[in-house]
Amino acid sequence: MNLYEKTTNKTSIYEGKIIDLEVHDVELPNGETSSREIVLHNGAVAVCALTPDNKIVLVEQFRKPLDDTMLEIPAGKLEIGEEREEAAMRELEEETGYKAKSLQLITDMYGSPGFTNEKISIYLATELLPGETHLDEDEFIEIHELSINEAQEKLANNEINDAKTIIAIQYLLLNYNHSK
Amino acid sequence: MNLYEKTTNKTSIYEGKIIDLEVHDVELPNGETSSREIVLHNGAVAVCALTPDNKIVLVEQFRKPLDDTMLEIPAGKLEIGEEREEAAMRELEEETGYKAKSLQLITDMYGSPGFTNEKISIYLATELLPGETHLDEDEFIEIHELSINEAQEKLANNEINDAKTIIAIQYLLLNYNHSK
Repeated sequence: MNLYEKTTNKTSIYEGKIIDLEVHDVELPNGETSSREIVLHNGAVAVCALTPDNKIVLVEQFRKPLDDTMLEIPAGKLEIGEEREEAAMRELEEETGYKAKSLQLITDMYGSPGFTNEKISIYLATELLPGETHLDEDEFIEIHELSINEAQEKLANNEINDAKTIIAIQYLLLNYNHSK
Repeated sequence: MNLYEKTTNKTSIYEGKIIDLEVHDVELPNGETSSREIVLHNGAVAVCALTPDNKIVLVEQFRKPLDDTMLEIPAGKLEIGEEREEAAMRELEEETGYKAKSLQLITDMYGSPGFTNEKISIYLATELLPGETHLDEDEFIEIHELSINEAQEKLANNEINDAKTIIAIQYLLLNYNHSK
């Protein structure tokens, strides 16, 4: 079956700092029409950084959409023209003060493909070295370092709810022997 | 450190079918001001359904924001006043034709807490029974049933990129002995 939906008309609703909003009229596979609301985002990177003593570095940050703080792996949006790996290295150092000698892609993820094109590339960073923090002027965070066992317990208790962070911790549980 | 950001003014930009958009002026922890773009969503549920022969049920669906199809676990948004477990049972049956005798919460996730409040509750469904599919009129999907090994291989090849689906597959890999 051909599942493609062709855009027949596009309306720009909003152009913002982080996101734009468009509404597309589409032609469905059965020839009928519908509309799709699309939040456009430039893309982001996230970094699962593992310290020499096998702790995962998390940032606690206030998230206005939830009106609460969340525990997340360091992340940020791509700057114009920036490569994803370069952005991952930059965000890690800016938010946590760590540089990484080794960076490898865990996976790319879409958090809400039904309404946004935001793609987050999640990297594993190891062989950490000291660097320098540098936060955006509207960015306030607190750093937490958790053992993999502590992170696993928070997952099991539904206390870590950020998708990229859940994926990163599950990846560590699947790929790192944390009993050592 | 108190990380709270207080809304001092709120502007409604758009009210749509699936999402609304607001822009909040906020007071930052240091007393300065900034603005936050917030995509409001009523919430969603997703179901990791495991067949009696240990296959995971995925749906292939066209996603206009990506202009491509994606492989995802069955999911859908909450209807007004609907309980999350009830919605999970309904979406599973409507999209795949399976009912489940057993449903348990894996985790709640936020895919993009920086700009949206969308919360997705991911359930594990087992003891499946035949039911009846019933798709929304603008919904077109194809069903795929993958062994856990096949799903693991697609994950490793960066071919499954939907966050809730990655979390569900990693959960199975961590909690189910799939060599049996």
